Amino acid sequence: MIRRPSAVFLAFLLASGAAFAADLTEQYRATADKLIAAALADTEGYNRLAYLCYRIGHRLSGSQGLEKAIAWSVETMKAAGLSNVRVIPAKVPHWVRGAESARMLTPLDRPLHMLGLGMSIGTPPGGITAPVVAVATFEDLAKLGRARIQGKIVLYNQEYRGYGPTRLYRSNGAARAAEFGAVAALVRAVTPLAMQIPHTGEMRYDDNQPKIPAAAVSPEDAMMMARLFDDGVPVTVHLEMGAQMLPDADSGNVIGEIPGREHPEEVVVMGGHIDSWDVGQGAQDDGASIVACLQAVAIMKKLGLQPRRTIRVAFWVNEENGGRGGVAYREFVGDKIKDQVAAIEMDGGAEAPLGFGAGVDAPSMALLQQIGKLLNPIGAGEITAGGGGSDIGPLLRDGVPGLGERTAGTHYFDWHHTDADTLDKVNPEDFRKNVAALAVMGYALADMPERLVAAAGGAPR
Amino acid sequence: MIRRPSAVFLAFLLASGAAFAADLTEQYRATADKLIAAALADTEGYNRLAYLCYRIGHRLSGSQGLEKAIAWSVETMKAAGLSNVRVIPAKVPHWVRGAESARMLTPLDRPLHMLGLGMSIGTPPGGITAPVVAVATFEDLAKLGRARIQGKIVLYNQEYRGYGPTRLYRSNGAARAAEFGAVAALVRAVTPLAMQIPHTGEMRYDDNQPKIPAAAVSPEDAMMMARLFDDGVPVTVHLEMGAQMLPDADSGNVIGEIPGREHPEEVVVMGGHIDSWDVGQGAQDDGASIVACLQAVAIMKKLGLQPRRTIRVAFWVNEENGGRGGVAYREFVGDKIKDQVAAIEMDGGAEAPLGFGAGVDAPSMALLQQIGKLLNPIGAGEITAGGGGSDIGPLLRDGVPGLGERTAGTHYFDWHHTDADTLDKVNPEDFRKNVAALAVMGYALADMPERLVAAAGGAPR
Repeated sequence: MIRRPSAVFLAFLLASGAAFAADLTEQYRATADKLIAAALADTEGYNRLAYLCYRIGHRLSGSQGLEKAIAWSVETMKAAGLSNVRVIPAKVPHWVRGAESARMLTPLDRPLHMLGLGMSIGTPPGGITAPVVAVATFEDLAKLGRARIQGKIVLYNQEYRGYGPTRLYRSNGAARAAEFGAVAALVRAVTPLAMQIPHTGEMRYDDNQPKIPAAAVSPEDAMMMARLFDDGVPVTVHLEMGAQMLPDADSGNVIGEIPGREHPEEVVVMGGHIDSWDVGQGAQDDGASIVACLQAVAIMKKLGLQPRRTIRVAFWVNEENGGRGGVAYREFVGDKIKDQVAAIEMDGGAEAPLGFGAGVDAPSMALLQQIGKLLNPIGAGEITAGGGGSDIGPLLRDGVPGLGERTAGTHYFDWHHTDADTLDKVNPEDFRKNVAALAVMGYALADMPERLVAAAGGAPR
Repeated sequence: MIRRPSAVFLAFLLASGAAFAADLTEQYRATADKLIAAALADTEGYNRLAYLCYRIGHRLSGSQGLEKAIAWSVETMKAAGLSNVRVIPAKVPHWVRGAESARMLTPLDRPLHMLGLGMSIGTPPGGITAPVVAVATFEDLAKLGRARIQGKIVLYNQEYRGYGPTRLYRSNGAARAAEFGAVAALVRAVTPLAMQIPHTGEMRYDDNQPKIPAAAVSPEDAMMMARLFDDGVPVTVHLEMGAQMLPDADSGNVIGEIPGREHPEEVVVMGGHIDSWDVGQGAQDDGASIVACLQAVAIMKKLGLQPRRTIRVAFWVNEENGGRGGVAYREFVGDKIKDQVAAIEMDGGAEAPLGFGAGVDAPSMALLQQIGKLLNPIGAGEITAGGGGSDIGPLLRDGVPGLGERTAGTHYFDWHHTDADTLDKVNPEDFRKNVAALAVMGYALADMPERLVAAAGGAPR
């Protein structure tokens, strides 16, 4: 009897649980409505984003742009009235692109639309000139074999099939091509949209294979060279890249908070990454997210709201090419990991918000769904399984319940890691809805009596 | 009684007219179905387009690319079995872009995404460095006046409102800015899509105003500089353009035909322009059109069809920056203008065909609608008022009935006059439908007993 609860007791638990959950919606409705109204009327957040995009611009780890953005973030968090604003130091990889270009020499002499991939080595001075071998997949590559690939430039003309599967060619293409003796790798930009614009992003070497330079080319250039190759027309390319790795640079995460009125030691953290690739303005990836998180908390402050627990904004550093910010934040938390009540990451752009993905147990999902109802008026109330993100990964792996803010993502991968990731891509109305969604979810999680419990089986990887 | 036809006679005319029109549909149904089936099964046309795009590429008036394209066209028309293949000589303007670049120097040092406008002068050696004054409209420009504009670079940040109205800033922006003492003009690319890509196109000077260099910038760069300017942040730009006009070059229109079996002297001409801007591949503008016209006639030839009148394919030259090809064709026709039975122009890309616009009288519209019915199976049967095009303008002004092939045009102005106007933008299935539409319309017009009559009031201008 002691070990097995009676049916009556189970019924009581379910009934009280349901009542409890309904209470959560009712309990926060007035506050949520105030937060949403304030967020939708806010212009300060978008103006802050405009400053970040137009006055600071892109901000790759190791760059002056990043350090300028960090200084501005500290200043802006203070101006928003946040407490305990500080930089959590982190050493970050310092990759620099240098001068780079590619030309097709035969059958026509044409400049190619290229962007070196992040972390690639450069070419020898004077560049590399070699025939191109075009493949669509790793299987095609293996079929061609070393005899056809040795000394050639491998072009991966992999059509976009969603970011996850297609990015493998960007990440691993050079290493796999090197295995067969290729001298460089060109990768069709990972994007559904062909507008003659290349997309950069991280690549990785295999310690057991030679390092060869790797660059993205526009979908158009990839399709053109692949068709010529398939038609038996010899394609020759000249590639020059001045990329190099410098010693690690000093940088850091920026955090600021509203201390909890009852449990200041317990923390709900929400944020995104402050670094970006060295092209465009890092507007959707991930400037809009960090500014939306900041503005969500700025609005609580303006409304005089102080949740029971601390609500903290984090601008993590080096998400794009190292993940050192997420690791440094985990170290900063140290043995107080149990006090990290929840972690919310936003890193999918700031198109219209849909809701949140969460890696939590079933009772916690029920609680989140009650909070979600408060966001239905702005279309952001959908709570789904999943969630997380690379910056909060180190927290989630140690049991912190993790959420990912989800957005429509209609055009996100058109702009992702390109020169076209600019302020104009962030619709002000959508941006404000994101601020509202983050404000309501962040406030409720930091204030509600209950705590979320991470799903069994650990964080998504 | 002689001068006023009786009601009975009118009723007879109407009835026979209706029967006649119905006859036209019935008369050509079998032939149309054969042409459509052959066009939809054809791969040769798209392969020809691929050659033009990938092996020859862009082809501005005066360039080697154009002359290569002309030689290839002669060869290809002959290979398709056309008769009387020849080049009608035309002198064309020879504008060359030269090296060009633009940078924003303040408030951030950033390269701008620019393309000089066609026919612009260059900058002095070493370029121009000047503050930017941003306006949205010509009215804004006039309001600012000479005191604010003198010595500055004028940026037109005109949002896309359809090609017609928006292109005025590209065409006339430099002349209008020069009126107020501007030293250069930058024009937001004329496009609904912002993907950090500039769109070139023709501009014109005003003989009463100084000539100043003019370039397009990407929508993103235009929006950024305009917002900074509006916020009171000084924006400085350095512009360098090596553009120049060389003496007129020798070039020409390419024509080929199937001579009419009864009236070889009567001609239905259909075509597009062989020249393109000096970026991308001129795939949608207007490579796909000329190859579709050629292939439509090639398919007639393969099917052993010989219409009553001559059906002629024309690849007009210099549509983009001078219109000399259309004028040369008119001169070539000379006093035999009455034998030009109809002229069909295709210059709106090769997305899914919708039908034809026509500038003809009401009875002729009824005939065209009967032919249109034959194209309903491929969605291309819509006959609307309007039509024409700049290459056939000189014919239409002298009374030749003109048609313009119309297509969906969903993305046409995303790609127009850019580096992204490449083969991949031409959907093979849509391309084949265009071939089918041209083949049916061209054949019926060349074969039917009736002749179209141009609408009163002359050609659209």
